[in-house]
Amino acid sequence: MIEVKSYLMGAWVSGERKTELVDPSTEEVIGSISADKPSLLPVLEHARSVGGPALRALTFAQRGAILKAISKALHTQRDALIEVSIRSGGTTRSDAKFDIDGASGTLAYYAALGAKLGETRMLTEPSEQLGQDSRFFGQHVWLSREGVAVHVNAFNFPAWGLAEKLSVAILAGVPVITKPATSTSILAFEVARAIVAAEVLPQGAFHFVAGSLGDLVEQLGPQDVLAFTGSADTGAKLRGARSVVARSTRVNIEADSLNSAVLAPGVAPGDDVYRIFLRDVAKEMTQKTGQKCTATRRIFVPRELADRVQEDLAEELSRVKIGHPGHDEVRMGPLATRQQLADFRAGVEKLVASGARIVAGSATDVAPIGVAAGKGFFVAPVLLRADAPGQADAVHAHEVFGPCATLCPYDTHEEAVALVARGEGGLVSTVYGDDRELLRALVLGISPHHGRVLVVSAKVADKTISPGLVLPSCVHGGPGRAGGGEELGGERGLRFYMQRTAVQGDRALLDKLFEAPKPSAG
Amino acid sequence: MIEVKSYLMGAWVSGERKTELVDPSTEEVIGSISADKPSLLPVLEHARSVGGPALRALTFAQRGAILKAISKALHTQRDALIEVSIRSGGTTRSDAKFDIDGASGTLAYYAALGAKLGETRMLTEPSEQLGQDSRFFGQHVWLSREGVAVHVNAFNFPAWGLAEKLSVAILAGVPVITKPATSTSILAFEVARAIVAAEVLPQGAFHFVAGSLGDLVEQLGPQDVLAFTGSADTGAKLRGARSVVARSTRVNIEADSLNSAVLAPGVAPGDDVYRIFLRDVAKEMTQKTGQKCTATRRIFVPRELADRVQEDLAEELSRVKIGHPGHDEVRMGPLATRQQLADFRAGVEKLVASGARIVAGSATDVAPIGVAAGKGFFVAPVLLRADAPGQADAVHAHEVFGPCATLCPYDTHEEAVALVARGEGGLVSTVYGDDRELLRALVLGISPHHGRVLVVSAKVADKTISPGLVLPSCVHGGPGRAGGGEELGGERGLRFYMQRTAVQGDRALLDKLFEAPKPSAG
Repeated sequence: MIEVKSYLMGAWVSGERKTELVDPSTEEVIGSISADKPSLLPVLEHARSVGGPALRALTFAQRGAILKAISKALHTQRDALIEVSIRSGGTTRSDAKFDIDGASGTLAYYAALGAKLGETRMLTEPSEQLGQDSRFFGQHVWLSREGVAVHVNAFNFPAWGLAEKLSVAILAGVPVITKPATSTSILAFEVARAIVAAEVLPQGAFHFVAGSLGDLVEQLGPQDVLAFTGSADTGAKLRGARSVVARSTRVNIEADSLNSAVLAPGVAPGDDVYRIFLRDVAKEMTQKTGQKCTATRRIFVPRELADRVQEDLAEELSRVKIGHPGHDEVRMGPLATRQQLADFRAGVEKLVASGARIVAGSATDVAPIGVAAGKGFFVAPVLLRADAPGQADAVHAHEVFGPCATLCPYDTHEEAVALVARGEGGLVSTVYGDDRELLRALVLGISPHHGRVLVVSAKVADKTISPGLVLPSCVHGGPGRAGGGEELGGERGLRFYMQRTAVQGDRALLDKLFEAPKPSAG
Repeated sequence: MIEVKSYLMGAWVSGERKTELVDPSTEEVIGSISADKPSLLPVLEHARSVGGPALRALTFAQRGAILKAISKALHTQRDALIEVSIRSGGTTRSDAKFDIDGASGTLAYYAALGAKLGETRMLTEPSEQLGQDSRFFGQHVWLSREGVAVHVNAFNFPAWGLAEKLSVAILAGVPVITKPATSTSILAFEVARAIVAAEVLPQGAFHFVAGSLGDLVEQLGPQDVLAFTGSADTGAKLRGARSVVARSTRVNIEADSLNSAVLAPGVAPGDDVYRIFLRDVAKEMTQKTGQKCTATRRIFVPRELADRVQEDLAEELSRVKIGHPGHDEVRMGPLATRQQLADFRAGVEKLVASGARIVAGSATDVAPIGVAAGKGFFVAPVLLRADAPGQADAVHAHEVFGPCATLCPYDTHEEAVALVARGEGGLVSTVYGDDRELLRALVLGISPHHGRVLVVSAKVADKTISPGLVLPSCVHGGPGRAGGGEELGGERGLRFYMQRTAVQGDRALLDKLFEAPKPSAG
């Protein structure tokens, strides 16, 4: 039995009342987490007054060195963390690595960026003359916000989610109060323990809240920031918080997304691009049991290929072995919670009611390997098909958070663009094809509705990433339903945690004010 | 009598019910505006479906040429617009020019930026290799949002406010629905008439809403944007709108700001810097009768200089001739409305109740030149002083929107930084001084709380802009109370109206997809 504790102001703290945590494969109780509603105002003030100044006193290079040490600490405990992930999150070994290596990899990426930014504490943009006089200049500079970063993470990436937000905030010089989702908090807790045990962060720079944030979000001020990953409903609630609305607390939201894969006209079933398309869609439907914000939910194919794609995909999906993720042959584990299972089944019904039909798999009928009959939150991957996708509203509006996607035939590439846009803003869309003019029309049409577009063409067919992989060098986020936010993207991500200021004055003076300090002798 | 009409879907439209508009100098009724609550959904759909595609089909250079023509149209009517401003807004000739030349100047600036960006429709960031393979690249591109820009303007800059938002949106390829503040809508209407009469904007790209927006804000979607300048209360209401909260309609808010002037330690009353400090503060208090979002509200000076500054400022302010702005010797006109007058008087009382005392001028006692006794919304500039500024909460929290500022003595430069930060986020702070280390501490301490910091030192004393001037090349906005937004800033401003997308794929292919089209032969 693991008790998930909070780490607040330098101490590990237990809750009074407890919520039980279960293994989603067996439903066995394996731990507990606080069910209290604490007042975290003292933590907020501690982070602001102790953690903030300590971090801001460090240079990017020094903060990068801290991230490097944390990355190493996680990597050192990789095997143990994988076991925790399998047991507490129902992830396969491969899924667990995706999360944990993603965490240490993102930390290492931002560590390297810190080293590159060097012994300075601000980002500067090129200065420019203002008006007639050659002395009077303007320079836009970015300085660390003097508040706290509150991170509210999703259940699906307990390690990566915590680490990717932490990396960027710490490198930007802003202390972190991070809250894991309850259901998979055991892994987040182990990650937090590793971070604390590394003893590299300054006092007050890192706090881990197991359980409720109480009224913390309402307490945030004009220098604080709030970053959330999770459902659109909770995102809307946070964005409506008094602090955000009335005090301009900066907020970043990653929420629902009806991500799409688009097979461009002209691709033949024998092509490499077709093969990668099939492989990607099957992977994006089933990796982490489809519980990824970037997982593919809608599959757009030329109408004449729809039957062939359906057949090939159904075959791919039928090969996916479902069961206890501790078993070597298993490729897909359970959903994370009983509630997720209920939501998944209700979601599939919603898609069916909206005009899609199930053409492969089942939300209810599954025989998982290696678990007692009736135990665990298992489903089979479900492939739906909507032959009149323009009329199937729920297919474009309701994200079923599990191994489920809908095949949508289209007639023209213009129609494909319009259907993709029906998602009203998404994280990622992937376009598979080779005709340059068609790709141009698809990419330019789809891009304004997405934070990321992956283009898989013949020459890079075997060299691309899978669509669901979030690289720290590219922005992650999307407009509209996806939350309207942006995370990561290398240096771009730092700016959420910093304030841009146009400083105007004597050019020579500004150069002196903002120059990096000379390295001390010796 | 002027009837302020709406321009919707290519036609000028009158309201059924009317609100009267008065000359704030004489209280004479000079016009009317609609008091209806229209449904603007057809206008929104027209702008999205007709104006948007037409603008997006144009290149930056072509959109820039449109802005150039609008700038010229306004400049051609400069004299007439100045007369309208004086009569309908109570502005002096100099104040009127500040607004109207600001409008045509900002249009011309963005026209030139369009020409510089050239025959393309997107902004691109440098591409970079992703991972091991030298073919697989990522490129961040910015494309026009496929929605509508709704602009809600403040009463204080009917010309500039409309034009600066319009410039950026149109150059970014996004159609505009703009709404002026009612009280000064006559000038905005004349500007809108000039824009329409120029016949350079594509159909559907420009709509002018006289009166209420009805429920338009609630109708906005994930590709639309909302930009507002005005009070923090209205800003909070807009940011809490369902569209913003639940559909991620992008919002930019410029709101209240307790802008400050900081006289650094060590400046002597005989110095050039001291002279400019006095000149700037007096100007920023009285220009446009203090009705500027960038006007100075708090004056921080070393305690030992406080009496001297008080005396010198009182003398400067006593020279300001107040009265009907049509008279040549008048340097300050009335406030814009009876409500503004009431708010101003209540605001001064609030500052007094909070621990400041009036040391020069009066919110009630004034004998304006050239107006009938008791007529017009006139006040004298009011200088207050708070000797214990740390305890005078309202001085740092309540913006009195008129010719009013509070002198706050400080003991150390660290205290000065802390007091400036008490404003909880502002648009601009100006630091006057010459000691480089003190300036560094002040500028670095103040910047995270501001969108702009002006540094006036000896070598540029006579070459800087006045603090209240918003240059299109520098960002305008500020964190916290100031709304948390950013406008203008050259190319930076375009990004609010565009979507950034990380496009990943074959480098050679991406280069082809995003290259500017070749100029056609002949």
